[in-house]
Amino acid sequence: MERVPILKIGDILLVSIQVDMSDQTAVALQEDLAERIVATGSHGVIIDITALDIVDSFVGRMLSTIASISRVLDAETVVVGMRPAVAITLVELGLSLNGIRTALNVERGMELIGANRADDDHDEFDDGPDAESTASP
Amino acid sequence: MERVPILKIGDILLVSIQVDMSDQTAVALQEDLAERIVATGSHGVIIDITALDIVDSFVGRMLSTIASISRVLDAETVVVGMRPAVAITLVELGLSLNGIRTALNVERGMELIGANRADDDHDEFDDGPDAESTASP
Repeated sequence: MERVPILKIGDILLVSIQVDMSDQTAVALQEDLAERIVATGSHGVIIDITALDIVDSFVGRMLSTIASISRVLDAETVVVGMRPAVAITLVELGLSLNGIRTALNVERGMELIGANRADDDHDEFDDGPDAESTASP
Repeated sequence: MERVPILKIGDILLVSIQVDMSDQTAVALQEDLAERIVATGSHGVIIDITALDIVDSFVGRMLSTIASISRVLDAETVVVGMRPAVAITLVELGLSLNGIRTALNVERGMELIGANRADDDHDEFDDGPDAESTASP
């Protein structure tokens, strides 16, 4: 079974998805990522999908699951590198990637995570519901 | 044909090799990388091989070629994430990855490139031969 490598860059974990995700690979990635977030105390996860020609419901669900797992571990997930065609297909398929933030490229994803952490530092109560964040389903 | 994505992070281009490299993929990667170095003016290329179980002479030669191309474009190449078993196999095969610098992980690779750029800044003549660099064949 192939494993998707997780790269630590500063406070962020970077995952570049290039292989076709099977059930096993997806579960392994979720487990690896959860372990790495806890081990490194990272506050951000960037998932690069530049190499993906298509994001189907399976991959979309995997991304949502990763974002949810990361969130309860106090890390934010940003999906970057989405191709225009992928975005069009996603909308046509009716997949909205709920709860997932996106950015154009890795650098903007890092800025987004950095900006959010800075915002959080100003908050008195980190645990309170954030009116600006995506509403939970 | 699969293309290996190239991620720009600050002054560095990051490539994570996860797929089996064919002749075509390798040539495409070299071309893409050369174009991106010129387009972005990056001074460092980090190639992550965490996902590779084996580095044979083909991949070794590809890494050397990438390092050589990058060098003439004024960018330094660092290979990171080599597994212990891969290092052992490389030595057993007699492949020494000439002219390629290595680091344990992406962060150390970035430090290495940053440190070298800082050294270069102290030089009066960047174009002159550098006694410390790997001798040209």
